Amino acid sequence: MRDRVTVALTEVLDGRWAHVRRAVRERLGAEFVTVPGETGDQARERVSRLIRDLPTDVGVVSAFPVEYGGSDDPGGSTVAAEMLAQVDLSLMVKAGVQWGLFGGAVVALGTKRHHDAYLRDIISADLMGCFAMTETGHGSDVQQLRTTCTYDAASGNFVLHTPHEAARKDYIGNAARDGRMAVVFAQLITGGRSYGVHAWLVPIRDEHGKPMPGVTLGDAGPKAGLLGVDNGRISFDHVTVPRDMLLDRYGQVAADGAYTSSIENDTRRFFTMLGTLVRGRVTVGAAASAATRSALTIAVRYGETRRQFTSPGADREIALNDYLAHQRKLLPALARSYAYAFAQEELAVTMAEVFSLAEPDEHRQRELESRAAGLKAVQTWHATRTIQMCREACGGAGYLAENRLPGLKADTDVFTTFEGDNTVLLQLVAKGLLTGYRDAFGSLDGWGRATFVAEQVREMMLERTAARSLIQRLVSAVPGRDEEVAVTDRGWHLALFEDREKHLLDGAIRRLRKGADTKKDRPFDIFNDVQDHILSVAGAHIDRITLEAFVAGIERATDESARELLGKVCDLYALTTIEEHKAWLMEHGRLTPARSRAVTAVANDLLRELRPHMRTLVDAFAVPEEWLNAAVLREEPARQEAMAKEDDALRAEPPL
Amino acid sequence: MRDRVTVALTEVLDGRWAHVRRAVRERLGAEFVTVPGETGDQARERVSRLIRDLPTDVGVVSAFPVEYGGSDDPGGSTVAAEMLAQVDLSLMVKAGVQWGLFGGAVVALGTKRHHDAYLRDIISADLMGCFAMTETGHGSDVQQLRTTCTYDAASGNFVLHTPHEAARKDYIGNAARDGRMAVVFAQLITGGRSYGVHAWLVPIRDEHGKPMPGVTLGDAGPKAGLLGVDNGRISFDHVTVPRDMLLDRYGQVAADGAYTSSIENDTRRFFTMLGTLVRGRVTVGAAASAATRSALTIAVRYGETRRQFTSPGADREIALNDYLAHQRKLLPALARSYAYAFAQEELAVTMAEVFSLAEPDEHRQRELESRAAGLKAVQTWHATRTIQMCREACGGAGYLAENRLPGLKADTDVFTTFEGDNTVLLQLVAKGLLTGYRDAFGSLDGWGRATFVAEQVREMMLERTAARSLIQRLVSAVPGRDEEVAVTDRGWHLALFEDREKHLLDGAIRRLRKGADTKKDRPFDIFNDVQDHILSVAGAHIDRITLEAFVAGIERATDESARELLGKVCDLYALTTIEEHKAWLMEHGRLTPARSRAVTAVANDLLRELRPHMRTLVDAFAVPEEWLNAAVLREEPARQEAMAKEDDALRAEPPL
Repeated sequence: MRDRVTVALTEVLDGRWAHVRRAVRERLGAEFVTVPGETGDQARERVSRLIRDLPTDVGVVSAFPVEYGGSDDPGGSTVAAEMLAQVDLSLMVKAGVQWGLFGGAVVALGTKRHHDAYLRDIISADLMGCFAMTETGHGSDVQQLRTTCTYDAASGNFVLHTPHEAARKDYIGNAARDGRMAVVFAQLITGGRSYGVHAWLVPIRDEHGKPMPGVTLGDAGPKAGLLGVDNGRISFDHVTVPRDMLLDRYGQVAADGAYTSSIENDTRRFFTMLGTLVRGRVTVGAAASAATRSALTIAVRYGETRRQFTSPGADREIALNDYLAHQRKLLPALARSYAYAFAQEELAVTMAEVFSLAEPDEHRQRELESRAAGLKAVQTWHATRTIQMCREACGGAGYLAENRLPGLKADTDVFTTFEGDNTVLLQLVAKGLLTGYRDAFGSLDGWGRATFVAEQVREMMLERTAARSLIQRLVSAVPGRDEEVAVTDRGWHLALFEDREKHLLDGAIRRLRKGADTKKDRPFDIFNDVQDHILSVAGAHIDRITLEAFVAGIERATDESARELLGKVCDLYALTTIEEHKAWLMEHGRLTPARSRAVTAVANDLLRELRPHMRTLVDAFAVPEEWLNAAVLREEPARQEAMAKEDDALRAEPPL
Repeated sequence: MRDRVTVALTEVLDGRWAHVRRAVRERLGAEFVTVPGETGDQARERVSRLIRDLPTDVGVVSAFPVEYGGSDDPGGSTVAAEMLAQVDLSLMVKAGVQWGLFGGAVVALGTKRHHDAYLRDIISADLMGCFAMTETGHGSDVQQLRTTCTYDAASGNFVLHTPHEAARKDYIGNAARDGRMAVVFAQLITGGRSYGVHAWLVPIRDEHGKPMPGVTLGDAGPKAGLLGVDNGRISFDHVTVPRDMLLDRYGQVAADGAYTSSIENDTRRFFTMLGTLVRGRVTVGAAASAATRSALTIAVRYGETRRQFTSPGADREIALNDYLAHQRKLLPALARSYAYAFAQEELAVTMAEVFSLAEPDEHRQRELESRAAGLKAVQTWHATRTIQMCREACGGAGYLAENRLPGLKADTDVFTTFEGDNTVLLQLVAKGLLTGYRDAFGSLDGWGRATFVAEQVREMMLERTAARSLIQRLVSAVPGRDEEVAVTDRGWHLALFEDREKHLLDGAIRRLRKGADTKKDRPFDIFNDVQDHILSVAGAHIDRITLEAFVAGIERATDESARELLGKVCDLYALTTIEEHKAWLMEHGRLTPARSRAVTAVANDLLRELRPHMRTLVDAFAVPEEWLNAAVLREEPARQEAMAKEDDALRAEPPL
């Protein structure tokens, strides 16, 4: 049934970890698929059970070191988690908490004694754990966590304490029900001095599931979605933590309380520690996009067979996908989903490369963090918008749980604010661009050293991220005068995206420098006055690297028809992105009014050209039918048959 | 605690039916407020119980005729339903199904014998009923419903039948559990001819709750939200319906099967019948906006006390509302909510006037339907976007059910597609503008008579809707050259909104006429090629009448400070609306690039000016604290106290 073009598209989309994707598709059957309409308790019970049933050889634990049962393949584990998102987002998040955050922190922040003691049980899910970082009062600014862990040289133990209500650990996955240990982030205090946030491995429940002494566990209660994840709250009342439970890869405390670290600066150490956890953001962005592809598959297929309003002069009702307004909703989102699939693939590849370097490369590490942050932000917002649109595109059917879209929407909703609030993340991207990924970038605070940053900003050379020589060739081929170039010219798209980023960045630098001169007494205002501008810089940057990834991705397609189709999809992505920024482009002389109108006209032409390929474009996502699990798709053949019968009847006798 | 300005703002917002709003606020206490985290069964049981407990003297049944226990006040009933939306959206929808749709249809389409027999029991909720119009296969195009009701002169009864699966009634409120009767819409066939869709009152359950013979009842199952509403499915297998159960105000069938009606044309009759049900759309738009005001109240108040990241040089963290990016999210949405509150008030007043006319005025009726459709569409989309944004603005807390936002989001989500799919509704608005609300407008088909419509379109005189003389004065005072006028000039806003609508409308007419000439053989394409343009016409129209309503609303404020504040809020609404359409305005020479940039700069200045008034602006919505029912608001004093303590501590000793 899948034709050559569809197969070829799937091959390009599946990318380097195609084997992981295929394994997950083949191995995870209906028993793993989300169940609509469960109560919270039912969902938690099911997901807790399934996480132990998950076949670990399909990649879900492949980021762990080989010696403990993993395969040292962080890219593969990200892709496996991404695939899980199409099966059940609660299961994906539960797996992310257990193996990504909890297990990942033990690997990255702990040392051999922690690995030897715990990793096997973590991998087998015999030891379920939490990643206890966020507090009620501090989520984005985790450098300012209020929980303290104070070393007492007399007893040789740490004392972990929650000083007030707002310092309780909140929203913590696995905390309400299943977690037996937690990696707890707190301010490390020894010898009367704080060395900033560090992490400890702390038992929170005994073998009977009862809270450990001094530990108070609460339930975050019902949530918008992700019912299968037991998010909860943890408070500590002077809890004794043995010295060797400090995850001490980046900072050590000797028996006498002396603190040592290979990174002297507290802030820099903290962000180095955080940096090792970048995989979480890479995974969340990927998962959001995977869920979006499921939603688009459902909505596009529904629009193929759902008809409404009779065509004048015809005896047949019109399929939703034939309406221009419907195409305007679905196709640009579909094109953007292709674009992000390529950008995400490139991000995973980069992550794998950076992680496999023999010597850490700080510049590349920062760049990776920045792109992970940016792509997480844009992909999760794309998911929120697109799944909502898909639900509306299915009308009342889209509101029923049996059609999957409400679950996809509710479950992915939290992605825009977890693993970093999107707005804060985009700010991080912008800061990286402003400072060339240098030291200041590491700080998440955004304002703390505004003056410093304002002084440090420099004109960045834009760094091309993918298919550098091809892109350079395309850009160079664009004639000087825009009006002579077709609006579908790829070189023109690339040059325009690049120019927009550069101009926005230059402008931000100018305004920040001016602010630093004139607002020395109001340092907060230096950044805040240009916050919207700074966020645009980040958006423009992500737009550009996404387009470059798309262009590079097309090159990887070996089937000519698939390449051609991808080219049109890329045109649509480029033109609808340009449409979004039309006003800015005209304001800054990058687009004439006439050419701006042409962009919209050509985009509409593209919709018509892509209309016949809508089904192919979603089929290429290759979401298994039993994962889609939507009643409207199960009823597809019946709907087609009924319509055909009605058509026959209408042809036989004119309507009453 | 509520200061003079807040009280004055509330007074203007409460409008003509302030007494209804106050009564609902005072009479509906915590026992009516939505309960987060219920199972579907619990929610249905609670809401079924509460609908009978609702005090009917607060306006919820005031649309019914005085002689049966109502007060002939459709405006008041819409406002009461709107208030219910802040209490519990399931309860509001359940009430809407029972009294608005079911009861409303019996009133509007039935005659005295139906009223005498059923209205008292409908009002008391002793007789629960359904509004069985939508079918699985036909929701927007209800003129093409497939259910048939065929008169059999021999028996003197109708036979009601569902010919195939896609013709089952679907998504029907009260069908799964509580409904004992249904107003069923079906094609009336008598004497071998169809007279189009009519409605019958049909028993669907007996007194024991069992389905009546030939009636199959199903459950639509779990939904994204509105768990308290028992949506279901109904199929009929040759069900006998006595002749007198036809709701026969607009069409009668004599014992011998002869059909009579005062409206000869089937289509026109059907849309006249539909037109009597306009109150549903008026109510849904109002309810969406009311829920949005609750969400904004929660998010703005959270942003006042939630702080994150330390201000450089200060020992205090920064409140979220102090960030430009946060203001950019919340304030334009808040301004738009004010705008829609005024537009909705005017719509309700218009509805009350049209309904109270001694002689029906078809032109005004059509205009009312158009504005109800348009304001329903824009308000429900505004709700979906804004509640989502509010949830994100509250971070992780916004994802917890205890903070109310997930419920507001999930419950209002369906509003964009029920009581008319928003895209179809905007098309209806555009068609009304194109044809001057003449006959063709009534048809929902959108395409069926494309050629006819294309020929009929004429240059419309824009009709001002509110405060006509004031608006004319403001517009006339604008000098000829835009660049000489401040971008905050109200006359300029009004003129620009009006000009945009007129230009878009003229352009659509031109393109349709051209299409009618050149595409005679492809009538579907005539409309479809310009569908996006047509939808813009509708959007521009609603933008204009909303701005005019806002301007008129400011005039009603008696407190000078309140007027001044409303003026700034209106500036922000106008400028951010202009920002949205900047590209179009530049493309069409309505805005120079320089002035376009000035619009954004001045909008940002307005954000700073309005920042200190954010709390006042949401307090003026006067949502009772126990209705808000959000944990983050209950924790507000504790949060303030804890932060104050930390501030003191920080001041006393420098941070570790």
